[in-house]
Amino acid sequence: MADLTLHEDPLSGNCYKIKLTAALLGLPLAVRQYDIRQGETRTPEFLAEVNANGRIPVLQIDEADGRRLLPESNAACWYLAEGTALIPQGRFDRADMLRWMFFEQYNHEPNVATLRFWLAFVGEAHLTDQQRALIPAKRAAGEDALTLMDEHLAERAWFVGDRVSLADISLYAYTHVAEAGGFRLRDRRHLCAWLERVSALPGYVPMVS
Amino acid sequence: MADLTLHEDPLSGNCYKIKLTAALLGLPLAVRQYDIRQGETRTPEFLAEVNANGRIPVLQIDEADGRRLLPESNAACWYLAEGTALIPQGRFDRADMLRWMFFEQYNHEPNVATLRFWLAFVGEAHLTDQQRALIPAKRAAGEDALTLMDEHLAERAWFVGDRVSLADISLYAYTHVAEAGGFRLRDRRHLCAWLERVSALPGYVPMVS
Repeated sequence: MADLTLHEDPLSGNCYKIKLTAALLGLPLAVRQYDIRQGETRTPEFLAEVNANGRIPVLQIDEADGRRLLPESNAACWYLAEGTALIPQGRFDRADMLRWMFFEQYNHEPNVATLRFWLAFVGEAHLTDQQRALIPAKRAAGEDALTLMDEHLAERAWFVGDRVSLADISLYAYTHVAEAGGFRLRDRRHLCAWLERVSALPGYVPMVS
Repeated sequence: MADLTLHEDPLSGNCYKIKLTAALLGLPLAVRQYDIRQGETRTPEFLAEVNANGRIPVLQIDEADGRRLLPESNAACWYLAEGTALIPQGRFDRADMLRWMFFEQYNHEPNVATLRFWLAFVGEAHLTDQQRALIPAKRAAGEDALTLMDEHLAERAWFVGDRVSLADISLYAYTHVAEAGGFRLRDRRHLCAWLERVSALPGYVPMVS
């Protein structure tokens, strides 16, 4: 495996996904930290040298033939996990794992993660009027995503197949800290049991270590 | 290959991605149509039998051992294209293709596709005040996504590697109809040349056939 460096902010669940994937696989991963609240991923240097999209995480892959940079948390997890048991063997299951990872980025993260960021890190008093006006819609959409997950887990231990996959890691990252965004987890018992299963995996690391 | 049926709305670019992937691969694909503007994907039957998330597209896969349902457009494209040249061979390129597909669902679709839907199909007069207030932010974020794509294509013909992949198909779907959402494509010449390359692919089908 190449030398791996994660460009990250330790507060970001998207970055944590990659660190958790690496930890479960026993892969060494260096980190380079940025503070997104200080605009450190929007500097001319970052845009030119790390990610023109101005976002972390970015996985840096150094090999004998050069350096490559990979933005997007779920793509970086895929890169690390290819050929391991974290990606299912079956064709349908592999696509179904990606289905949950796209669900995570479309239905879950923009609601569950955004409310955590706004309420726990920016602070409600510092939000713009437009952000404040969006809270109810993001609250409802985030609750829907968590309910869908809880119902999916009613009859299964993991999101896809019969063992942990990247779908679980991806969805775990912002779900396990959802209460910081005002979401209630305790009433969703299948979801809570699944959170416990993830945190009991050999090699598990917590979000801020 | 199994019998394939796409649950779709022909106005949806997310559905079109799957039809274009199937067409480029020469795979037969039956369709079952719904009108999302009439709420036909939110009925109790649809939620129970097709997708608990109330969304199309859903790819239905019928095989001798049963029926499987796969939501999320990019996951369905992956399922169809596994083992074909639409998914790159190299480990980094494969992850980089997914990177652009996650970018599409996070940075592109919620802005470029949503403004098309609001302005060309719902109509500005019928938007809620909150939707109308979001137009400038979605306009700016959509323009940023299109500019990032144009700059990426300045020195390459395709998004990943040296041939078409699912990254191109995914990003093509809502980009080529972006002007219906008030975005200007003509000034972005690399993007326009790439749109032409996609539409010249053998097997290409237009969005509404």
